[in-house]
Amino acid sequence: MGIDKKQMALGAMMYFPAGEHISSWRHPESDAAGLLDFNYYKHIVQTAERGKFDMFFYADELYVWDRFESGIVQSNSIRPEPFTLLSALSVVTEKIGLAATVSTTYNEPYHIARKLATLDHLSGGRSGWNIVTSQTDEEARNFGKDKHLEHKNRYGRAKEFVDVTQGLWDSWEDDALLFDKQSGSFADKDKLHNLNYQTSEFSVRGPLNVSRPPQGYPVLIQAGASEAGKELAAASAEVVFAPGSAFGPFGTVEDGVQLYEDIKSRMTKYGRSRDELLILPGFMPIIGRTEAEAAERLAIVEELTPEKLGVDLLSHYLGQDISGYPLDEPLPFVPQLEGFNQSKSNLARIIQLLERENLTIRQLYKRINSRGVAGTPAQIADQMEEWFVSGAADGFNIMFPHLPGGLDDFVDLVVPELQRRGLFKQDYTGNSLRDHFGLKRPANRYSTVQTS
Amino acid sequence: MGIDKKQMALGAMMYFPAGEHISSWRHPESDAAGLLDFNYYKHIVQTAERGKFDMFFYADELYVWDRFESGIVQSNSIRPEPFTLLSALSVVTEKIGLAATVSTTYNEPYHIARKLATLDHLSGGRSGWNIVTSQTDEEARNFGKDKHLEHKNRYGRAKEFVDVTQGLWDSWEDDALLFDKQSGSFADKDKLHNLNYQTSEFSVRGPLNVSRPPQGYPVLIQAGASEAGKELAAASAEVVFAPGSAFGPFGTVEDGVQLYEDIKSRMTKYGRSRDELLILPGFMPIIGRTEAEAAERLAIVEELTPEKLGVDLLSHYLGQDISGYPLDEPLPFVPQLEGFNQSKSNLARIIQLLERENLTIRQLYKRINSRGVAGTPAQIADQMEEWFVSGAADGFNIMFPHLPGGLDDFVDLVVPELQRRGLFKQDYTGNSLRDHFGLKRPANRYSTVQTS
Ligand SMILES: Cc1cc2nc3c(=O)[nH]c(=O)nc-3n(C[C@H](O)[C@H](O)[C@H](O)COP(=O)(O)O)c2cc1C
Ligand SMILES: Cc1cc2nc3c(=O)[nH]c(=O)nc-3n(C[C@H](O)[C@H](O)[C@H](O)COP(=O)(O)O)c2cc1C
Repeated sequence: MGIDKKQMALGAMMYFPAGEHISSWRHPESDAAGLLDFNYYKHIVQTAERGKFDMFFYADELYVWDRFESGIVQSNSIRPEPFTLLSALSVVTEKIGLAATVSTTYNEPYHIARKLATLDHLSGGRSGWNIVTSQTDEEARNFGKDKHLEHKNRYGRAKEFVDVTQGLWDSWEDDALLFDKQSGSFADKDKLHNLNYQTSEFSVRGPLNVSRPPQGYPVLIQAGASEAGKELAAASAEVVFAPGSAFGPFGTVEDGVQLYEDIKSRMTKYGRSRDELLILPGFMPIIGRTEAEAAERLAIVEELTPEKLGVDLLSHYLGQDISGYPLDEPLPFVPQLEGFNQSKSNLARIIQLLERENLTIRQLYKRINSRGVAGTPAQIADQMEEWFVSGAADGFNIMFPHLPGGLDDFVDLVVPELQRRGLFKQDYTGNSLRDHFGLKRPANRYSTVQTS
Repeated sequence: MGIDKKQMALGAMMYFPAGEHISSWRHPESDAAGLLDFNYYKHIVQTAERGKFDMFFYADELYVWDRFESGIVQSNSIRPEPFTLLSALSVVTEKIGLAATVSTTYNEPYHIARKLATLDHLSGGRSGWNIVTSQTDEEARNFGKDKHLEHKNRYGRAKEFVDVTQGLWDSWEDDALLFDKQSGSFADKDKLHNLNYQTSEFSVRGPLNVSRPPQGYPVLIQAGASEAGKELAAASAEVVFAPGSAFGPFGTVEDGVQLYEDIKSRMTKYGRSRDELLILPGFMPIIGRTEAEAAERLAIVEELTPEKLGVDLLSHYLGQDISGYPLDEPLPFVPQLEGFNQSKSNLARIIQLLERENLTIRQLYKRINSRGVAGTPAQIADQMEEWFVSGAADGFNIMFPHLPGGLDDFVDLVVPELQRRGLFKQDYTGNSLRDHFGLKRPANRYSTVQTS
């Protein structure tokens, strides 16, 4: 056997239940009505496991996107709650990691530490958490606030939130539980610790009423691409979902390498080494057995979104209603980052795109909506390989234009091609999500003897 | 076929993972180390389903009971998080209802409405919610507060919490989703509703991003036995867990009838009829094939709790440390309800017990700890029948001195006896928890045409 070639990590993402695309549910091959049926998700996660994906990732938001009527009528704003979903999925899978988005802005760390720890126990060490700060005022209004927390305060709170949950996961040392029926000793009291966290943001005493997760901590994921987001990633995350192909055909490899280096180079000041964090750009393949078929399938996806919905989505990203402007002219203003309180990095990418290309409103919304890369399995694998070997990616967060079909195609056609090239594993070699990603099990802060 | 005899409803309760008893984990037949292993719970819930239980009920609290060292060393304060657990269990069962405790004091209604709705969808209409207000300052300190909310404010908040969640469950009318790929209509906008709830306690805009639960609303359960608790039950609950055998051998049938009438008679003023609510007293059978075996098994259970733990538990219920007083004398003070901020009804039962019997501290803590009724299957069935036909119960919430064995015994020995007597169903006749309990599906407040 030769020396092991480095292999890519792969996540399978579900944003909308029917796929990545806001209009995925309309795709002729999608199962729009399956979105609250357990068997729908079961098929998808089992397919991802058949394809040896390291992780299934389920995105989340905490509201119905009803800012525009098109959001209610033409989009799909219903989605099962992540923990409820992942926990059920853990029962019908054995190896694949199970990660979901949880907001640090509208949750309590004790509940989240506990749910993730429980999922980690029940799944045998397969849980992951995409740490997000949420994005909209609509979300705030479901949780007793009028406006969404300011961008800079969101990430401060997020950092503390993660600190608190990690502290709670360390409540019980790994060998604290004795179960000694004879002596009546359930636990060793010296191996149980109160957190006593006290700041203006959180006051949490602990201990957690769930023992230490099998993985020590669930795998921590971060997807914010603003300055504050990148700092949080460098300080705490083990996986970064980089925007990758978001807005335009995959960005350039150079953009990818630059972001990769940008994030990894920030890690040193937090005392972390580069291999403690994996960068997985998003990538949405639209697969055809031939180039012609791929082009056809891309056209189907691009036609799914009604004009009104496309424009409203752009209004949403810009934070102002542009539906009154002529569609075939450029935006009559230059969007400003300052004072903007939704996703800053999304808006920054729009601004960058407009600096590079003089697009009309129609072209712009179509570009934002069209994030897929069409090609044959070999062409898709070529692109992934290029990013991977160029140092723009440790793997990919694969997005699907429609589900379950887009995933079926990837597993049946692209995965074997990647395996043939030695770029992707033939099978799981470990059991936990940390095993799959090659991440170390974190030590318990209180333990003198370390188990790992 | 004759006229159907009224049959009892049965819930299978899990307080501690190893059983009802604070020292259940020490029972020779318990599986103490299984408490974070999914297969442990799977066996239990599948056994309950085999026994045709209407519902599996998982209790919860939001802290480690570390007020006394014995709580850490000798008790078991670790427990999986309820939603994560129930959702996984929904995958390995088909009929049995799945209910858990969720606190209204330390949660946000949007999250809870969403999780329950998701569980209801994924389980095909089998979810239930035990509405509690939490009990201790330790819980408060895990959620940013210093002291537990005042008893009277807890129930005010609980009532509003339930109102908000019900409002959120009505966000989407039952026929709001269209999934019309051709026209691009995902939903009918006239059938989606904002809640816009605004009081000093909650401000929640809605709508919920999960469609209406299959049951309309999950089944609402209440267990508070204070005045405020009983009012909440009469106003909103569909099942009441009455204390039943708590503190002493099952109380008397007369106590049971009185409480039953008390709660049911309060319903009229909320415009509800008596059959919209089931009263299920708690009942912990200790089953032997012979009387001698039952007595032996009772003795095993009673010996499990170390003296220190027994006294500390009494200190906990009294809200003051009594470990300095001589164990073989009566309490040197009379406990006072006024100003007491933990479980008022627990303390009231202790006071009542002390008025009836002049117990020493040792006798008192043993009585509190010994809530089991020992007997042969026929004797157990006799007691249940007596309560049922006397109008003290619509069924029972069965507690197990140890798990899984206590449940196995009940299913194998008592259930057939109840079935023989025509007191309990031979099999499930419906699919949802509402079906099992004979409860109507609530109408959506916004709908003109009602589906049920
Ligand atoms: C692959 C990927 C997945 C994301 N998933 C979510 C999500 O599930 N929920 C959410 O609110 N935001 C999600 N985001 C948004 C980010 O958390 C973040 O808010 C956004 O990238 C803007 O970054 P910023 O907040 O640093 O400006 C995701 C972003 C990416 C790139
Ligand atoms: C069968 C039963 C189950 C209960 N389950 C819980 C529980 O899981 N969590 C909890 O905090 N309290 C639980 N309680 C306590 C009640 O919610 C309530 O706080 C207690 O009965 C005291 O009533 P009060 O609050 O009206 O004084 C339970 C009570 C009973 C009788």
